[in-house]
Amino acid sequence: MLEKSCIEFLAVLSSKEPVPGGGGACAYVGALGIALGSMVGNLTLGKKKYQDVEEDIKVLQEKSETLKKELKELVDKDAEAFFPLSQAYGLPKNTEEEKAERDRVLQNALVGASEVPLNIARCCCKAIDLLEEYSEKGTRIAISDVGVGAYFAKAALLGAKLNVLINTNLMKNESLKGAIESELEELVRKYTEKADGICAAVEKSIVG
Amino acid sequence: MLEKSCIEFLAVLSSKEPVPGGGGACAYVGALGIALGSMVGNLTLGKKKYQDVEEDIKVLQEKSETLKKELKELVDKDAEAFFPLSQAYGLPKNTEEEKAERDRVLQNALVGASEVPLNIARCCCKAIDLLEEYSEKGTRIAISDVGVGAYFAKAALLGAKLNVLINTNLMKNESLKGAIESELEELVRKYTEKADGICAAVEKSIVG
Repeated sequence: MLEKSCIEFLAVLSSKEPVPGGGGACAYVGALGIALGSMVGNLTLGKKKYQDVEEDIKVLQEKSETLKKELKELVDKDAEAFFPLSQAYGLPKNTEEEKAERDRVLQNALVGASEVPLNIARCCCKAIDLLEEYSEKGTRIAISDVGVGAYFAKAALLGAKLNVLINTNLMKNESLKGAIESELEELVRKYTEKADGICAAVEKSIVG
Repeated sequence: MLEKSCIEFLAVLSSKEPVPGGGGACAYVGALGIALGSMVGNLTLGKKKYQDVEEDIKVLQEKSETLKKELKELVDKDAEAFFPLSQAYGLPKNTEEEKAERDRVLQNALVGASEVPLNIARCCCKAIDLLEEYSEKGTRIAISDVGVGAYFAKAALLGAKLNVLINTNLMKNESLKGAIESELEELVRKYTEKADGICAAVEKSIVG
């Protein structure tokens, strides 16, 4: 999916093609968020003024690379999880038997279709943790980029939440639904607050 | 810039290359936001259930295309505005004369470097207006995508704000600085609230 040019990605996202959808777009925006952290890390490394944090930044850079890779993979996984779901919706529902079979297939597909955006949400939270460390240790000349990254990661987290809810909302397995939704609620509570803190600190350090 | 693949764009954003930076990334995320509106429009057009709004959606689709084009252009304009700024920073400042000349060139470059993210912010606000209309008229089956689009547009607006402030903060023309910052403050106040309203309505319509 991400081998397309940025222009093509916009065009296919705009189209009525089933994928990429909002979930995949969130994974990509989360990746753009942590990429801004990597940029700040790259501008910090090798600078005399920041030699005290050189080793910490190197560790951060590695973590960011791993996370970016995970988020890129989630763009494709989100597309893959959509197909079983659309197939389930396409099953006939004329007889009671057909209805039961359709529901069984649908309930199965909903599990995968919820897990992918939940994983996107988890990755966006990791991005926010890393961006917090960049905001504390990275070069001051690119501090605004850390803030932009945190805004992106927060938006992608909240967008991923909507993509979980559209699926868990149809789930009949109440204990699974409850477990997913309560993890999500806790992630959103904790990490939107953390992202807001990063952005406020960045703005303060810009305007003084 | 956007002719690169999505993967390359992530890589060059992560690098210490001066462009794309946070500003260009905001323009692209704003474009992804309104692209999700276009998607919802495309899924709505031609559907019997939504024939009452068919003409409204067609108008919306055209507005979204224009806006997407503007935001794509702003990715490149952001990169172009960076060069005069980095050239100004590179000028010598050994004598009083050099300092004065450097400051003159820098103050000029700051105007362009502020205007581009201000235009990105304005476009993100237009995106939020359009997404609000999609949330009211678009097909219910893709309502989560409108919410994701609004989260993206809001994040891009707030990110663009940081990119304005890093430049206006160094401006000596107090009346221009004041005019830009007060327009920006008003846009952020009005449109973050509007985006939050869209997202809350979307979440409500998902979970009931």
